[in-house]
Parts: sequence; C-alpha cells; structure tokens
Amino acid sequence: MTDQMIKAAFYRGNQTFTVEQKPYSAPAAGEVAVRISYVGICGTDMHVYAGHMDGRVGFERVIGHEMSGIVDAIGDEVTGFEVGQKVVVRPLDHCGDCPACHAGHEHVCHNLKFLGLDTDGALQDIWNVPAHTLHHLPDDIRMDHAALIEPVAVACHDVRLSRLQAGEDVLVIGGGPIGVLVAMVARDAGGKVTISEVNPFRLEIAQKLGFETINPAEEDLVAAVNAKTGQKGADVVFEVSGTQPGVDAMTDCAATKGRIVMVAIHAKKPEVDMFRFFWRELELIGVRVYEKEDYEKAIAILVSGGVDAETVITDVNGLDDVQSAFESLASSPSALKSLIKVGAE
Amino acid sequence: MTDQMIKAAFYRGNQTFTVEQKPYSAPAAGEVAVRISYVGICGTDMHVYAGHMDGRVGFERVIGHEMSGIVDAIGDEVTGFEVGQKVVVRPLDHCGDCPACHAGHEHVCHNLKFLGLDTDGALQDIWNVPAHTLHHLPDDIRMDHAALIEPVAVACHDVRLSRLQAGEDVLVIGGGPIGVLVAMVARDAGGKVTISEVNPFRLEIAQKLGFETINPAEEDLVAAVNAKTGQKGADVVFEVSGTQPGVDAMTDCAATKGRIVMVAIHAKKPEVDMFRFFWRELELIGVRVYEKEDYEKAIAILVSGGVDAETVITDVNGLDDVQSAFESLASSPSALKSLIKVGAE
Repeated sequence: MTDQMIKAAFYRGNQTFTVEQKPYSAPAAGEVAVRISYVGICGTDMHVYAGHMDGRVGFERVIGHEMSGIVDAIGDEVTGFEVGQKVVVRPLDHCGDCPACHAGHEHVCHNLKFLGLDTDGALQDIWNVPAHTLHHLPDDIRMDHAALIEPVAVACHDVRLSRLQAGEDVLVIGGGPIGVLVAMVARDAGGKVTISEVNPFRLEIAQKLGFETINPAEEDLVAAVNAKTGQKGADVVFEVSGTQPGVDAMTDCAATKGRIVMVAIHAKKPEVDMFRFFWRELELIGVRVYEKEDYEKAIAILVSGGVDAETVITDVNGLDDVQSAFESLASSPSALKSLIKVGAE
Repeated sequence: MTDQMIKAAFYRGNQTFTVEQKPYSAPAAGEVAVRISYVGICGTDMHVYAGHMDGRVGFERVIGHEMSGIVDAIGDEVTGFEVGQKVVVRPLDHCGDCPACHAGHEHVCHNLKFLGLDTDGALQDIWNVPAHTLHHLPDDIRMDHAALIEPVAVACHDVRLSRLQAGEDVLVIGGGPIGVLVAMVARDAGGKVTISEVNPFRLEIAQKLGFETINPAEEDLVAAVNAKTGQKGADVVFEVSGTQPGVDAMTDCAATKGRIVMVAIHAKKPEVDMFRFFWRELELIGVRVYEKEDYEKAIAILVSGGVDAETVITDVNGLDDVQSAFESLASSPSALKSLIKVGAE
C-alpha cells in the first residue's frame, strides 16, 4: 500500500458519520498495518452513534472494533507476521502495571484502552494496531464471517466462565446479537439452550437458528423454564437483556446451585433478589470482553460451523454508506448483525 | 434416662417463652435421644422471639438449634453411637427426592426441614433427632464451646465456598456473631482479615479478637480498604450486614476478579451494582447453612483454638432464665453470643 491518503469514517457527533480521506501513516515500531475487509456494527457503536459516549470518543474518532483484515505492512520489532496474511484484532491494549495486569488479568486492566473507542478503530481502509492484539486466521475463512469473531469471542468468554457442562439446561435472557451468539456457543458446548425474548423478529431468528424460545410477554417464563427442566430450573442463566425484568428472571429461573452470568451492561443499579442467592446457593459471574484463548476458540467455532454466520449477518453495506447503515440499524426491529464492507479480500 | 417428664422452653408468641414440663418420649427408629448441655441463641431465634416467624414456628414450638449434648438413648436401626458420647446436631433434615437432593446438594433441599424451627429443637432436657444429623465430638471438648459448632460451621461453609487462599485480603462487612466467626475462620485459612462495623461495642470485640477494623461511619471504607491492599481491593468480601450500605460496599471494595460471599439474608431486594460486576469481573456466591464437611472442619477449628470461644461467648444463663436471656440479648448492644446452660455434662 503506497497511497498517501486512505478513506475513513469519522464520528462527528449528533448521530453523524462523515467519510473522508486521511493521510496514510506507516505502522510504528511494534505495530502492524491491517487492510480492513469487513467491520461489524456493535451495540457499543450504536451507543456512540446515539451520543452516549461523546465524552469518551470525541468528534474526531474513527470507531469500529469488530473486523477482519489482511496484513498490509509490518512495523519494526514485529515478528510472526507476513504481508497478505488474514488476521483479526483483539482490540484491547493493557497498561501492564496495575493490580489486574499484575495478577495476569490483562483483559480487565484498570487502565484498559479499547481500540476503536479510546483510539481510532477499523472503519477505515488501513488500521495500524499493536502486533500483540492480532490473531492469525485460516487461509480459507470467509472474511465476512470472520468479522463475527470479536462478538463470538465475547460469547466464548461468557460460556467459558459459566463452567457449562454438556447436558446442562441453559437459559439465555435476551435474543439480540450477543444473546444468539452466546446461545450458539453454549449449544456448541453441549448445553440444552432456551432463549427468552419479546421481540417477534428476534424470536423468529432464534427459532430459525434452531433454538427453543419463550416469549415472557405471552407466557409465564418461570413456569415454562421449570416445565422444560423437570421443575429444576436452568443450570446456567445468561442475563443479556439489560432490563429489570431480566434481572428478576435470572434469579427466578436458576436451578439450585445454578450459575448466572451477567453479560448485559446495567448502567443503572437494578434490584436483585439476594434472598434467592442465599436460598438456592446461586452464583453470579461478572464477565467482560475476552482473553486470548476466547479468540482462538471463536475462530475454531466459526471454522467448524458452530456459529451460523449466514443467519446472524442480516445486512452488508459499503463504507460510503456507513451513515445509512447506522440509521437503518437504529430503526430496524429485524436486523441482527450489520457489516460494513471496507473491501480488502 | 427413665423420668417420665422433662423440662422444655416453649415459644408462646408475643415475645414470650414458658418453661414447662413435657412428657419424655423414647427415640423412635432411626433417632437418637440427646441430653442437652448448652444451647446458643441464634439471630434466627431472635427473629422467632420478635414474632417474625410465627407463621412458620407456631406457638407450641421448642426452638433452639445451636447446641452440644450427650447421647442418652439410641433408637432402633441406629448404629455408630453409644450412650454417653458427646455429640452435636447438624439440624437439617432433607427430603431425598427433590432436584437439589438428587444433585447431591441435600443442605439446600427444596423441602428442607430445619430442626428447631420446623420441628422441636434443643431448648429442652432431651432432644430426639435423626441419627444422620449427629456428629461425634472429642471427649475432652468443652461443652459450652461446643455449642458454637453450628455457627462456626456456617462460617466454615462460607469460607470454603469463597475459595479463599492463604495471603488473600479479606473484608468482612458486619461484625456481629456470624461476622466475627467468618473472620476467625478466614484468618485460620490464612486470610488477611479486616472487619467493617459501626457498633462501637462490636468494634471493641473485633479488636480484642485481633482484627483490624474500619468504622465506615467515621472513615471512607473504600479508601481505607484500598490503602490496606495496595489500591487493589479485597480479594474476598463477606457481606454479613444485611444492609443497603453493606451491599454498596461489597462491590466498591472488591478487587478485580474478587469473590463476594452473600452471607446475610436480605429479605428485601437491595440495589446491586451490576456494572461493577461486569467492569471488574466480580463473582457473587450465595451460601446457605452447611454440609457435613463444614461441621467436621468447625469441630477441628474449635479444638485447635482457631476460634476464640471465650471472647465470643458473652453470657450464659440457665434454662429457667430463657425469657430474661432473650430480653437481655434483644436490648444489649454489647452481647455477642449468649448460651443457655441446660445442664448435661
């Protein structure tokens, strides 16, 4: 890549992206330049679009962190990469010098930089990233599917920390993009998965993906879960709804000694049934992003077909259409995962 | 024991106990008759006294479940016991036929009977109990100290489920009877324990027991915990206060990847900082009563001196004085554990 200018989508505030040329910079020492193939639009990106994160991202930011791409250039002091290799970025840059990093938990570093929010991200032709954030991809992987690796890695992390065992009953509360990915990864691990969701479009997708579903607006969720589990309740519950009814359901539907995984981000403190935690010896497991092994697992699941990428990806638009892609996603009740095709194949 | 009548304390409602004679019954098949030595007054017993559990216990109930005693008679089909042996009762009777029992979690049986609440208890000369509830005691154990085994077993269960490792920083929120026992068992396991408490009498006892203390009414609890832990926070937090400020503190004071053990019984749903569970990957562990191994551990700790029984036991009264003992405990800010001496030695 020898062009002097590259194309990038800048978040400018007020629900607006502008697609502009920006100067190309060669990768610095320790960095790799990645030509971007596809970028997925994440719920966090929708929060940026809605203006909820202006203080953090500002108005000169190139966002985007779910992606696939191809090595384009390699900075000094980087080994293990060749131009033309397919890669994916694990968009976490840790400080290396906080209590979490010292304890080996770099993904929850106290000074964590999230690439694509705290630094520029993937919605541009070429993205320079620290080499330690890259994972290699198999040569024959489809690059649109590979853009799902980041959210699939979230699901792999959540399922791994749930200690799910084959044959256990699983309830996923909330059938949005992360909910269905958690459901697929849990099913891949041998879980018997039911999805609770109220949106009829999402219920339809969940059913198309082969899951049993419950609509708690139409039937008694606790009774339905108990009926499916021999009156035992779910061994593992993933709360992905981010709602008070979801938090109520997570304790009501969990089996004795059940594990509840808090996947949703609750900005407001919900009321939580602590008596039920005592009474049934429940466990609540907080989860955040992913670790290296979750990325490797996510790549393996995508390659094996454990995640139905074709059904999850509901829209693909070009980088020039990023504004309309965000507008559509904000208003569409039926979209699950929208991709932006930046172009590299 | 061949007397036809024995003495028992009946809860009659309206904050009233009556000490009366009742007919002696020989132990049924599968039961052992235990002559009671000492009975501890539990927080749950105080709830009974206050009238909060009238619907469950009724007005003809002999309560009491923290105890020590001596085998007095042995029913048919019971093996492994001899008259005169020192014993303690693990006051749980499970159904054997619910999802929890089938999964091997008998202590959280869905139809659990708690002896001394759902059936008659230890505040009587002789208590007939299912043989499977008994644990043997060493011959040389002090029977007043042995009455602490039940609450110490609670603490052993809580510490075991916390997965506490030697050298970890521990915060106990609430320095009442269970709080100080949890603190002592955690210290015995190698934890570096700090107790948070607002009651000056309890702070004094905690300090007498050798613990570092923080009074959150007088200093910033989070800052104090961070200062003690190199700005890391507590690796393990026991919430024993049963209050909203305690629930706020449990998430604010926990280290990244910290474990929070919910020891207190929150009848009302508190607001819980679910964002912090996500942000620091916290874990919440619900705990209830104890299992066999916790009783064996509690006996071992009492024998080894890991629990300072002399400091914990602040009052001893006779069975005839049970009414005044409850009245004193209800009004005393300085009492920690009150025992009723029933008499068998």
